[in-house]
Amino acid sequence: MTAPVFASERPVLRLKPKANARAIRRGAPWVFENELVMDRRSRKIAPGTIATLEDNEHTPLGTVAVNPNSKIVARMLDRELVDIDQTWLETKIAKALALRERLYDAPFYRLIHAESDGLPGVIVDRFGDTLVVQPNAAWADALIEVMADALVNVTGAANVLKNSGGRGRALEGLDDQDVVLRGSAPEAPVPVQMNGATYMADLTGGQKTGLFYDQRENHAFAARLAQGANVVDVFSHVGGFALASLAGGAASALSVDGSAPALALAEEGASQMGASGRFETRQGDAFATLEALAEEGKKFEVVICDPPAFAPNKPALDKGLRAYERVARLAAPLVAEDGYLVLCSCSHAADLNAFTGACLRGIGRAGRWATLIHTGAAGPDHPLLPQLAESGYLKALFFRL
Amino acid sequence: MTAPVFASERPVLRLKPKANARAIRRGAPWVFENELVMDRRSRKIAPGTIATLEDNEHTPLGTVAVNPNSKIVARMLDRELVDIDQTWLETKIAKALALRERLYDAPFYRLIHAESDGLPGVIVDRFGDTLVVQPNAAWADALIEVMADALVNVTGAANVLKNSGGRGRALEGLDDQDVVLRGSAPEAPVPVQMNGATYMADLTGGQKTGLFYDQRENHAFAARLAQGANVVDVFSHVGGFALASLAGGAASALSVDGSAPALALAEEGASQMGASGRFETRQGDAFATLEALAEEGKKFEVVICDPPAFAPNKPALDKGLRAYERVARLAAPLVAEDGYLVLCSCSHAADLNAFTGACLRGIGRAGRWATLIHTGAAGPDHPLLPQLAESGYLKALFFRL
Repeated sequence: MTAPVFASERPVLRLKPKANARAIRRGAPWVFENELVMDRRSRKIAPGTIATLEDNEHTPLGTVAVNPNSKIVARMLDRELVDIDQTWLETKIAKALALRERLYDAPFYRLIHAESDGLPGVIVDRFGDTLVVQPNAAWADALIEVMADALVNVTGAANVLKNSGGRGRALEGLDDQDVVLRGSAPEAPVPVQMNGATYMADLTGGQKTGLFYDQRENHAFAARLAQGANVVDVFSHVGGFALASLAGGAASALSVDGSAPALALAEEGASQMGASGRFETRQGDAFATLEALAEEGKKFEVVICDPPAFAPNKPALDKGLRAYERVARLAAPLVAEDGYLVLCSCSHAADLNAFTGACLRGIGRAGRWATLIHTGAAGPDHPLLPQLAESGYLKALFFRL
Repeated sequence: MTAPVFASERPVLRLKPKANARAIRRGAPWVFENELVMDRRSRKIAPGTIATLEDNEHTPLGTVAVNPNSKIVARMLDRELVDIDQTWLETKIAKALALRERLYDAPFYRLIHAESDGLPGVIVDRFGDTLVVQPNAAWADALIEVMADALVNVTGAANVLKNSGGRGRALEGLDDQDVVLRGSAPEAPVPVQMNGATYMADLTGGQKTGLFYDQRENHAFAARLAQGANVVDVFSHVGGFALASLAGGAASALSVDGSAPALALAEEGASQMGASGRFETRQGDAFATLEALAEEGKKFEVVICDPPAFAPNKPALDKGLRAYERVARLAAPLVAEDGYLVLCSCSHAADLNAFTGACLRGIGRAGRWATLIHTGAAGPDHPLLPQLAESGYLKALFFRL
């Protein structure tokens, strides 16, 4: 087990004279290599080391986590010079927990959303008694055992699993080994209640389909539209929008996805809800299936498309926007007159205006008119740090055609 | 009663060669004077006249309502050349009603939201059996009797009131006379159930405080934060956020507003909810009251500020943003540690980024840090026309400090 690091024993990292100390004082959470005096000593700091950040006049700016091998060399942990130990972690976790307990009736939510919850690079999703931790920054990986203790102490959870599948880990030079940190891994998929629906979360199976909490509020809004409707949920994963629609009284729901294991979990969820009779699935390529449904002359009162990130980064933006436009163009013809089209993007690079524009072009090319009745984002268990614009990645546009 | 106008009998308005006919074909709902051939004949068209819009090659673009005295000379009513009669109006109203009936359990909502519901310049709010119509464009004022019949036929409402207080009416050259069009005006304030709270809507009293539906979803989100909390609602009007917070289980709620009649209605609502014991009001200037509360050392777990539009138009933008910053700076000190600050703007001219920036500056100047847990907008009974960016006027930022 890694020992905690005390403020008095640690190295110092210093800003260059021209670096924007004011932005950091105002809350910017990341410090990049070109802002720092990177001498031989700083380059040798081991990834994950806790250090003190100073401005060029040697005035302390706070406690940071250092990784000289990452684009983000320093991540702000605390504006004060503090020990990053179990007590400090427990304070952050307790604060995050207080928000979620205020918002949700049951312990199923994103418990820690990285920088926004004061734990840079750390994601923790809670599935009842089981916590799944993604330590996507070197400091968190180094302190993972202390963090597991802190998580158990604050939440009372029985099982803590380390998921090393995060894309950020490679950038931080971290491995991809999953570990059971405390307790044991659930052997069967865990049933998760949200918006009156039952989702099956496969936390440890070979497919690691998992379950995402970020669309919860958008599922709820779709469910309000779904009463008596025929619904198709394309890129459905484990049935996110489809099962919420069934819980909202949909006459029928069709889940389309490329993954057979994901659809099997969706079917299990529908079965546990007693809604199997109203639920169907189609496995296959989403674009091809949208075209096939149109050829079959199918119409739905509610059509939902929640694709993977087509524009995860700036170089992929143009191509990604064309893909979103294509989704909209292929989905719009399936929407019944006066029906609803829900188009989602989880692309960091496509901002709301660009994404909305792509959707409207696609809808227009399909010869339809749209009004926008609701714009949704990730739920409040995914808070945003206002200083990190990119943290607002999720958009869900609810159009009426 | 004004007779309906048939397509075959009406004047033609023609675009200039350089006007953007493509934008109009793609859904732009307004045509300005500089885009139109304004010869002597077109200038003589009576305000409110229904006409045919053509491009410069005499190809029809649709059916428009004309007002040569307005900045917006033509408003698109229909992409087809159709009669604008009671049947046409009933089709639009029925479509709008279908959305609201899908969304809400009880007949209290914005029924018609102007361009977005296909009736340019027309606002209709529904309070159970009573409809309040704001015909803020000349065509709607001219057809108001036909519209009243259409509204009664589609909704079954008993009373239809014309409210001529809309700011747009002067721009259209319309009077400010209120009229009871059908049935009678309710003599007492009407109780309105929303989010478990009871609001009193004074539709006809001397103060015409009215009631706004646009914050309903944001009231609901605030109520989720309010369980057990002490809440202050500044610029409270008839108790919007305060009463929703009480319904959500707030320990106490304090409404601050400059209007005594509005606060009296809030008190009546709290009384009908059996929540008078947890409810207080303070009449006075909001800024002064924020300062006074800070001097008294008061702290609240939830602080909400929903001021009037400080930046209703572009010339007022800078001054408006400074006012929003000041609200944030004065409100932040009242927020208990780990509490919530809800800041709203209904300013057309201040977009989301500008408003968020002003709020963060104010919070920072108060020496506090914020994460953003939710961004709310007007509810889905206020749909947006994507072609009219400014229709997204309402922003509600939910910060955690």
